[in-house]
Amino acid sequence: MIKEKKLSRRDLILDAGKVGIGAVGAAGLLNFIPKPAMAKEAQQLPWPYEKLDPEEVGKIAYDGWYKAFCSYGVATGLLTPLQKKIGEPYTLLPIEGLRLGEGGLVGWGTLCGSLLGATVAVGFIAPYDAGKQIMNEMLQWYSDTQLPIYKPANPKATVAVQTTSNSPLCHLSVGKWCQKAGKSLGSPERKDRCARLTADVAMKTAMLLNDWKDGKFKSTLKHPSAIYGITAQHNCNECHPNKIPDVIK
Amino acid sequence: MIKEKKLSRRDLILDAGKVGIGAVGAAGLLNFIPKPAMAKEAQQLPWPYEKLDPEEVGKIAYDGWYKAFCSYGVATGLLTPLQKKIGEPYTLLPIEGLRLGEGGLVGWGTLCGSLLGATVAVGFIAPYDAGKQIMNEMLQWYSDTQLPIYKPANPKATVAVQTTSNSPLCHLSVGKWCQKAGKSLGSPERKDRCARLTADVAMKTAMLLNDWKDGKFKSTLKHPSAIYGITAQHNCNECHPNKIPDVIK
Repeated sequence: MIKEKKLSRRDLILDAGKVGIGAVGAAGLLNFIPKPAMAKEAQQLPWPYEKLDPEEVGKIAYDGWYKAFCSYGVATGLLTPLQKKIGEPYTLLPIEGLRLGEGGLVGWGTLCGSLLGATVAVGFIAPYDAGKQIMNEMLQWYSDTQLPIYKPANPKATVAVQTTSNSPLCHLSVGKWCQKAGKSLGSPERKDRCARLTADVAMKTAMLLNDWKDGKFKSTLKHPSAIYGITAQHNCNECHPNKIPDVIK
Repeated sequence: MIKEKKLSRRDLILDAGKVGIGAVGAAGLLNFIPKPAMAKEAQQLPWPYEKLDPEEVGKIAYDGWYKAFCSYGVATGLLTPLQKKIGEPYTLLPIEGLRLGEGGLVGWGTLCGSLLGATVAVGFIAPYDAGKQIMNEMLQWYSDTQLPIYKPANPKATVAVQTTSNSPLCHLSVGKWCQKAGKSLGSPERKDRCARLTADVAMKTAMLLNDWKDGKFKSTLKHPSAIYGITAQHNCNECHPNKIPDVIK
């Protein structure tokens, strides 16, 4: 699957000769440790994609939250089934490396980590233009939807409250839910809320990717930067309650 | 470099036999396309790291912005030199897949894309605890520092103004700069400001990673979620000018 560079048997023997090792047998070549100059190249983007089962994706993502939180949860929900279905290049990606998006980036409450995990997965799966529009739709859906929706088979806590964040920011998404539910950040209910939301984001991303694979993904949604003259969310008045600063156009 | 699963010569012959291909010669095996069940596994984290030259990192990141913007810029600044120095597993990662962080996530102004690129790179390079603290320091530095600092050898526009964002959000970082400079989002000056900031973020990340590699990285900075009882930035009054909502603890 991966394109190989200077790794044919003939080239390996030639390269071995060049660096003074001399001709070696095929068995020796199979134990050859590639040096930078002959390292394999990455498989060109977009990576091959087969439609995912959203229910399977949701379950893996929910369980994934309890292993390494939101960013890892969505990434493992989307990528683990592709590692099993397709193998390389997905198996070459250590998914746990994507966990630092947790808590809106190590607890800073910026972009919801679930969306960071989705962004990286979509970036490898979809061509740039489609991926950009899929993520635009994802952030709008995340902002507008009463979450969480997902009902785990074996919930770890009771989550009775749904909220709409009006924003893709972790701080607003978690904060509004905690206020309405009357639960703290450290409560089992808040944790299960985020685990369920992680499943929701992974499942919605899988559904949009499946639509794209089927040629059914259509989006005319404008990117906020094209509307406001600045990169922005749509909930302007939440941070600018009195007057929105003039935008320089 | 990559751990192999069922890919020894002996195992390949055994596997080929199992699926009815029969014994084949070594030359044939070298052209073998792995199926999911025998796909290579990802190299375990953290990936090997060699200290980077911050100046080289900055130049690649600056030029990278003009190819695919901020998230890609930082990722390519950090990872391209490692592809050259170390080879696999870095060469197996198609860096352009990380470009969707642009404009705070496809123009939504959330987490500055440069920090998203840094997050993914650090997630592969540093062990989890160190990576988490490196990114905590990065977000604090990004918020507190007059940016941009980087001076390109061949600038594409004049950037005379520096600003402090007080936030890791693209919307605030770009917005405050545009207001002070009197330049629009679409201006050459704003674009070069973001290209320079991309270099700054990549260079600072490289310096922290180099310190960590030397055993010199120390950080006692608390994560905001441990201070406020909610995932948050430190600029509370900027969005809550009158009263910060009660935090449920």
